[in-house]
Formats: sequence, structure tokens, C-alpha cells
Amino acid sequence: MKILVINCGSSSLKYQLIDMANEMALAKGLVERIGIEGSILTQKVEGRDKYVVKETMNDHNDAIRIVLDALVDKENGVIKNMEEISAVGHRVVHGGEKYSKSVIIDDEVMKELEECAKLAPLHNPPNIIGINACKKLMPNTPMVVVFDTAFHQTMPEKAYIYPLPYELYTEHKIRKYGFHGTSHKYVSNVAAEMIGKDIKDLKIITCHLGNGGSVTAVKNGESIDTTMGFTPLEGIAMGTRSGNIDPAIVTFLIKELNYSVEEANNLLNKKSGVLGISGVSSDFRDIEEAASNGNKRAELALDVFHYRVKQAIGSYAAVMGGVDCIVFTAGLGENAPETREAICNGLEFLGVNVDKEKNNVRGKATLVSAADSKVKVFVIPTDEELMIARDTKELISK
Amino acid sequence: MKILVINCGSSSLKYQLIDMANEMALAKGLVERIGIEGSILTQKVEGRDKYVVKETMNDHNDAIRIVLDALVDKENGVIKNMEEISAVGHRVVHGGEKYSKSVIIDDEVMKELEECAKLAPLHNPPNIIGINACKKLMPNTPMVVVFDTAFHQTMPEKAYIYPLPYELYTEHKIRKYGFHGTSHKYVSNVAAEMIGKDIKDLKIITCHLGNGGSVTAVKNGESIDTTMGFTPLEGIAMGTRSGNIDPAIVTFLIKELNYSVEEANNLLNKKSGVLGISGVSSDFRDIEEAASNGNKRAELALDVFHYRVKQAIGSYAAVMGGVDCIVFTAGLGENAPETREAICNGLEFLGVNVDKEKNNVRGKATLVSAADSKVKVFVIPTDEELMIARDTKELISK
Repeated sequence: MKILVINCGSSSLKYQLIDMANEMALAKGLVERIGIEGSILTQKVEGRDKYVVKETMNDHNDAIRIVLDALVDKENGVIKNMEEISAVGHRVVHGGEKYSKSVIIDDEVMKELEECAKLAPLHNPPNIIGINACKKLMPNTPMVVVFDTAFHQTMPEKAYIYPLPYELYTEHKIRKYGFHGTSHKYVSNVAAEMIGKDIKDLKIITCHLGNGGSVTAVKNGESIDTTMGFTPLEGIAMGTRSGNIDPAIVTFLIKELNYSVEEANNLLNKKSGVLGISGVSSDFRDIEEAASNGNKRAELALDVFHYRVKQAIGSYAAVMGGVDCIVFTAGLGENAPETREAICNGLEFLGVNVDKEKNNVRGKATLVSAADSKVKVFVIPTDEELMIARDTKELISK
Repeated sequence: MKILVINCGSSSLKYQLIDMANEMALAKGLVERIGIEGSILTQKVEGRDKYVVKETMNDHNDAIRIVLDALVDKENGVIKNMEEISAVGHRVVHGGEKYSKSVIIDDEVMKELEECAKLAPLHNPPNIIGINACKKLMPNTPMVVVFDTAFHQTMPEKAYIYPLPYELYTEHKIRKYGFHGTSHKYVSNVAAEMIGKDIKDLKIITCHLGNGGSVTAVKNGESIDTTMGFTPLEGIAMGTRSGNIDPAIVTFLIKELNYSVEEANNLLNKKSGVLGISGVSSDFRDIEEAASNGNKRAELALDVFHYRVKQAIGSYAAVMGGVDCIVFTAGLGENAPETREAICNGLEFLGVNVDKEKNNVRGKATLVSAADSKVKVFVIPTDEELMIARDTKELISK
């Protein structure tokens, strides 16, 4: 069984065609600049040169058509025809309170997705456009949506209700949802396997650290809290997002510094985080380089970032009554030994003891804590696409 | 030496006349409804009936005059004449970055206080009005200001810099300041004394839980982080304040739900916190009663409150590399055994073990942890007025 996984952004689209026999990706691709001059598709297949298609793509219909063409291309493709694709799994950011699991797409689901778009105006609309484009071109292929929020629907009320007038929840659905759920679920399960224990007996803290980032408390296999909230702006400091700040700063920006609401939003989402502090870049590699060249603000940006992740770990140990295992994943979590070391430094009182040598690893599932470390610390590369493919397979096989 | 301590709000004023020989309050008083019909002064003196003065008070000058009259009143007063007052200590909320210590008032200080008023538009102006009224009536008496922010000026950059464009700090002074400093300093010092160790060798977490609330990490006698921030809105859930929420909720309220900036500010400061969740009251006693009568939202409000204080404790243990001592103070912290128990419950992994019987205490400095508890847990009644009086005495004696 071959499953196509699609992750559709507003002007870009990532895809993988996964062979479920061995759970390996037959092809991975990225489409950029959809609807913008210079549209381009790049497809990678193990053992072959990159396949690049430069062709006008006015919309997502064009993009999906070109993806399918690339997959069945005689010379550069990996399948003979579209019928080989048994199903499509779509990543959707926001499933609201309705979806705690992945679901087969039907008309009712599409209606609900439109509803949820109010809660994720930046993310859900392109996801929906991608689904509609696929449905048009593959009308008989079953499709599944996998939500970024679903894994966090197990959070207890005390974690997801904000200290706000309760009516904002009942009438406007303002609550904590959490994101990156597919990733937190995947790496926590892999960690349990690597420890060799049932995940139902473990307290795990998963740190998904990329350009966006979130930390999740996974107790007995369920997300009981996570740092992202109503939107992906809340939580730890990120590449360009502020994460938690005094909410009064938002009204101060508008009232005292004459920002418009849009400008304030833009500042908090696009100009803050480690980019804002450092003034250098949102890319941690650039910031680390600047810091090592003596740039004090770059150094401060890293310090603040490590500090805030450390606080999240401490607070989740507190609400779980301890921690057995800490997992680092995503771009930075998988590839930055010094980041992991800085975050874990000082957590010895929790039983965390990172082995400097073992920790010198990039992008490979590895136990990086010392043999005598009470808390196991892992690097585990995330694989959201595989999770989406697995969910898709399971649902269409029922 | 007798010192008058004044804490001036916009329409109210609290005062104490403290005899520094034994550090006891000769008189404690409250003036309410300044500038509003029905102005009233209530003065308490140990062993006597309450002394109540109902008299029109158009402004703070009237209020201070009536306070001084009450103190020297032949029948109800405690001193013969104003000359017995050696100095006045004023509480001021915001000292900005300029003041890390208390200071004798002179013209330059008054100018700086006006500067800081931009950062605390609700709090500093009435403080300043109170000082000016006192100066008018007691032109030859030395006066001192004690700042709520001063104790927190030891925070390292990584704790006080927000993940925002750095220019918001350099140009507009947007950073974490922290409040309740006088209280956190006082109770952490008392705790060290009660433990019998030098505060320089201790990691203390102080929980000031009143209608407003903040938690502070005191390492080696210095505040290294605190939950309140740029304003007293940030941090844990409070009586009517939201504390930390997704900053995107603020822009959502304005943009999607058509709140004005003032309405959003008012909602977050006056209608949120445990009042907002419960819909019952901002007073924890009312909420506890409602919860015990089966009100689910009241129960949820308490759960959220406990949960968020617990998270703060966990995060501060993480940044201090452990914790030796947790202190509860202020209205709720001193008087609510069930609150302290709920917060500490589940922190056994940190070495916290509250003794249910010892914990059944109200308003008395007490060790409430079990004999074998690695982390000492204390109830310590705060005494901000005494701290202000001590600072005042020290400064004018130089």
C-alpha cells in the first residue's frame, strides 16, 4: 500500500509518497511559490539526482497536478499511475474541540474544517484548499485528515481553560489547543519503545524545537499539557514568535506606541523570538555563529531561549509529579547538541545527567543521557509524515 | 523613633505608625473614598475600640491632614504632636530600572518618579500625590520611598528580557520588572532565619498569594526571577487578573470580537482570573464555599489557580537547580491551608512533604512541612509596612 502525504501551506506544499510495506518514503518533494512567479517543484528519491520542475502554478490545483505528474513521470517518477496511490493523508493544523483523532474526509468533515478555520485563519484555509485540489484530481481515492491539535485533546480542563471570563470559552472557543501534536505523539511513543516500557507507565516531556517550538507533558501516553495555546504564538520563545509575554504589553503597543492590531500581531509573530532579541536572524545556526563571534545580543537570545525551555521542563515535571524521560526533536532539537546541553544544564536535581559525548549526535535516534541518569534523555528525529501515513492506512483499512 | 508608613492608592490610603524601639505598630489605619462622597477613616490601636472619622475629603491633602489629626487626637491618638514622627516611608509601586534600593526623597527622586509613572499609570500617580500631600503638611520631616520593584532588580538579563524586538527594551523600557518585592524580600529573609542558615546559601521560592499574586525565585538572597512582569498582569492566575495567556488572545479580542483596547485591558485586569472562570467572586473564600456546594466552575477556578502556582514552583526549581524552601504569604498564602496543600500536592519528587496537621494554621509564622521533608515549607505572614519602616530608619540614620 502506497500513501501520499500532503502538507499544504499558503504558497508551498510538502509531500511524501510512503510505501507502507516498509514505511519508507519512495519520494519526498517540496513545491514552492504557488501562485507566485517562479513556481518550482523539487522531488528527491533515494539514490537519484534531484528532480526539479519549473512551471507556472497559478493555484494549488496546478501544484497538486504537477506533484502527481512528478510521481508518475516515466523517467523521474516512482509509480506507474495514480491508481497505485491507495489513499491521501492531509495534515490540518486545527481540529478544534471536535477532533481528538484523525478522520476520513467526507462532506461533514469538510464543513467542520471550515468552522475551525476561524480559529486558525493563517493555517487551515491553505490546508482546505489543498484537500479540495486533491479531491478534484483524485475523486475516487480515500482521504484522511490528521490534526496538529488532536493529540492534545486529552488535556484536562485545568490545563486548557484560561483564567478569563468563562464565556470566552463557551461562546468563542477560546481555550488552549496545542499544536505539533503528531510530532509529540510520535516521539513520545518511540521513546517508550527505546526505554522498553509501556508508555502508560511513563512521564515524558517532549521538546519539539524548530523554528516554531513547543514542549509537551505526556503522562501515561496522553498529552496533559503543552506550551502552545489558543494559537501557535503562546509558549516558549521561538524563531520569530514571542511566546509568553505580559499580555499588557500587547495593549501597551497599541495604546501607547500606536501600533495597529495587525502591526502588533505581525510584530509578535514575525519579528520577535530569538530574531527580535538578537537582531541577527531567526535561524539558530546564524545566531550561534554571531554569538561565538562575540555578539552579545545573539548570546542573550540563546540564553533566553534555553532559559524558557528549561522553565517549561520544570513546570511539566511539577504537574506530572516528576519526569522519567526528556525527548528532543525537530530541526534544532535533533541537530544542536549545545542547545540540548544548555537546556539540561542545572536539571541534575531532577535526575537529568546528559553525557557530553553521547550528546554529540545529529539527526539520529539516540540515548544521550549518562548510564546512571535517572531521567533518560533522547534525541529522536520526528516523522510527522509517517504518522500521517500510519493513521491514514489504519482508517482506510477499517 | 516613630515612623509613619504610607501606602497611597487612587481613592484609598493605608497607614501605620511604627515604634522602631520594638517594631510594633502604635496605630494602623485605612482611609477610604478619598474624593468620593462618604469619605471615612478607620484607625485601630491595640486594646482600644476602632476610631472612625467621617469627614469630607476632597483630595489626598485632606486625607493626610485627617490621618495626622487622628494620630495626635487627644482621646484617640497615639502621639502628642507631629514632631514625634521622625520620618515617613512611602510605598511606591514602580521604580523602573533606576532604583534597586529604597531612597530618601529629594527633587531628583520626585522627577524620576514622574518618569516611572509612564510604566505604572494606575499605581505611581496616586503614590506621588500622597508624597506631595505629606510634604506639604510635614515639610521638615525626612521621607523615603520604598519600591515594589526594587528587590527584583537583581534579575539576570535572560529572565527580564522578553523575546521581543530588543528596541522595545532600549527605547521603551519594556522588560520584566516584577512587583511585591518588599514582601518577597521580607518573607525570604524570615525563612532563612527560621531555617537557621545564611540566606546566601539557600534556594527559596516565595509565593505571595493575595488578590494579586506573584511567585519569586530567591537564590542566594537575590530575586533571580518572578512571575509578574512589565506590569502586575503577568504571571499566575489572580483574583481578577488573567496572568499568562496566549498573547494572540488579546489581538483576537480586539480584532475578532470588537473589543476596544480599554475594554480588553479592563477584561484582563478586572474580569478575569478566578473571578472570570468561576463567575462567582474574586474572593477565594466565596469561591471555596461555592465549590464545596458543588459549583463546578468554582472548583475549576481553584484547580486552575493551584495548577498555575504549581507550574511556577516547578519552573523556578528548574532555573535555580533545585529548591530548599517554599514560603507561602499574603492573604491567601497565610490563611488557606487547603490552598497550600493543593499546590504542594504532587511535588513530592522535589522533596516537598507538607504535614497536614502542622499545615492547619492561619496567619502565624510556622514550618508546615513534615520533619523529614527535604524542602522546608513555611507559612510566613508578610509585613511590608515593617520593611518600609526599617528601610526608612536605616536611610535617615545614615
